[in-house]
Amino acid sequence: MRAAVYYGPEDVRVESVPDPELASPTDAIVRVTHTAVCGSDPWFYRGESDREEGSRVGHEPMGIVEEVGDDVRSVDPGDRVFAPFTISCGYCEFCRKGLHTSCVNGDSWGGENGGGQGEYVRCPHADGTLVRVPDRHADDEDTLEALMPLTDVMGTGHHAAVSAGVEAGSTCAVVGDGAVGLCGVLAARRLGAERIVAIGHHEDRLDIAERFGATDLVTARGDEAIERVNEMTHGGVNHVLECVGAASAMETATGVCRPGGTVGYVGVPHGMEGGLDVFDFFGDNISLRGGVAPVRAYAEELMADVLQGTLDPSPVFTKTVDLEGVPEGYRAMHEREAVKVLVKP
Amino acid sequence: MRAAVYYGPEDVRVESVPDPELASPTDAIVRVTHTAVCGSDPWFYRGESDREEGSRVGHEPMGIVEEVGDDVRSVDPGDRVFAPFTISCGYCEFCRKGLHTSCVNGDSWGGENGGGQGEYVRCPHADGTLVRVPDRHADDEDTLEALMPLTDVMGTGHHAAVSAGVEAGSTCAVVGDGAVGLCGVLAARRLGAERIVAIGHHEDRLDIAERFGATDLVTARGDEAIERVNEMTHGGVNHVLECVGAASAMETATGVCRPGGTVGYVGVPHGMEGGLDVFDFFGDNISLRGGVAPVRAYAEELMADVLQGTLDPSPVFTKTVDLEGVPEGYRAMHEREAVKVLVKP
Repeated sequence: MRAAVYYGPEDVRVESVPDPELASPTDAIVRVTHTAVCGSDPWFYRGESDREEGSRVGHEPMGIVEEVGDDVRSVDPGDRVFAPFTISCGYCEFCRKGLHTSCVNGDSWGGENGGGQGEYVRCPHADGTLVRVPDRHADDEDTLEALMPLTDVMGTGHHAAVSAGVEAGSTCAVVGDGAVGLCGVLAARRLGAERIVAIGHHEDRLDIAERFGATDLVTARGDEAIERVNEMTHGGVNHVLECVGAASAMETATGVCRPGGTVGYVGVPHGMEGGLDVFDFFGDNISLRGGVAPVRAYAEELMADVLQGTLDPSPVFTKTVDLEGVPEGYRAMHEREAVKVLVKP
Repeated sequence: MRAAVYYGPEDVRVESVPDPELASPTDAIVRVTHTAVCGSDPWFYRGESDREEGSRVGHEPMGIVEEVGDDVRSVDPGDRVFAPFTISCGYCEFCRKGLHTSCVNGDSWGGENGGGQGEYVRCPHADGTLVRVPDRHADDEDTLEALMPLTDVMGTGHHAAVSAGVEAGSTCAVVGDGAVGLCGVLAARRLGAERIVAIGHHEDRLDIAERFGATDLVTARGDEAIERVNEMTHGGVNHVLECVGAASAMETATGVCRPGGTVGYVGVPHGMEGGLDVFDFFGDNISLRGGVAPVRAYAEELMADVLQGTLDPSPVFTKTVDLEGVPEGYRAMHEREAVKVLVKP
């Protein structure tokens, strides 16, 4: 089969690799029909985070089940499914608690499982990991594109909102106008937030934020952004969604958080070698919640909204490529031409 | 009047200073009958934190109201009162929210207000700051000594427990066997924790922890402590009280926290110039809550328990001195001879 492989900074190639095979009775093989380039992919693409040369990339697969192991009970060949960016068993203590990212039997995409950016993946723990799309929606292209962000960014934005304690009537701020930040806006609106301040610095992305429900847009960085948000909210907000993962974004997040408020953070931390300044949190009792998003936990409730037509995060996909176009997709993400790239192998 | 003054590392002197006077109609003058040396005082005493030479020290006053300004309504001369380590108005947004440490009209002990370690203090915002002890208990020495920790360490230990989400049936761990850690044990038991693992390295202090309700004692540091707690709890606890404030204690706290759990931290951060490693929290969605404890918020509920005889944190006072003995009190705290020193001017 064909699949995208990482060879070094700014060097992702699509090449022929062995087809994946069932290795355990709980595995499934999925033919990938939709996948994406993630906002975290540019970090290794730029050489900012380590990644082994020759490793398979992608972690947001959606497709059709081709083959299942003998012990798989929840999906059959021919089913339309999608999977989150982590593999989880579904039955351990942490999966039952909704913390699938800490699954004690967990696994990840890449290696022999294949990455999402390829023709096929092997999905370990298929019963725990795969989310089945009901048959009546299984071939509707618009629906599938609206479901695709549930593999990662929509679940992650939702986790930021949940972690920040957003609820009906809340005033909140969202730091970051990437796909996760935009989905954070959508999630906050879905949870009933009354006022949503989106902080970013790309006007085209803030337009999407507004479409997604942001009530106030702040196009600024650092101290200027903090000052403007604190002025418009008379001293900061109680709920902040930190959707970037960079040290500067965390500083903005704590800077706009009202004393006693909560920062929900979900961006993979990067550029934080200096560590978090705990004094940013200590004096005003600001809580720090969140972490890597257990998007599997949120898949069913978010899918229900997509299927009834009340949730559509697909506008985050501003560019679409086929499998051979994956390197071009990385380039477009790296150069911030695209918010998020949809891949249709 | 006589009062303790800081002159530099290992140099605290008791000397004659001007009596405090009412400066605002909301002030009260309190004659100090009881105060304490705090576990945070040795930091400036050792020169580990900055403090201006010539500054007045102490921040845990209890005493008799001598004089009140025209606008003071909740206390009268002759009343027995105590005050937390921060001064708060009682009516701003944050005081109403129970976050008195973020009071927008807040003030602190020291300077012209006087520190707690002196014959008198001036208390600004007397209505918001002072807690009145009911007359029938106002002269009972045992009760007063049991109430004294409510000025700081008992409220702080309680804040750690509340921030960590301890509730009836919880399994929790307490990092630190200083006065705050011991009060954290007491607070966790009071909130109904079922299993309380106390982690420290002074056997005499862990004896107090056991008396206060710890079900398991771990006398170890760093990785050894983490390993033992994780073994005895089959993978960590959901609620950790970090009662030290040092970087190593925070590492122990995250190390014994179960995925998805919460670290409630209350120790003034020190030795954390390197910052917090956010990866200790991110991967397993560990929440960080707490901060400087709004002990004023907890005074009434904790006092009710002390007055009915179901709460007695006074065993944290392992040494008592008079005002002239304050320098000796600092020495005893510095050399860890005393858990906490009670001062009776």
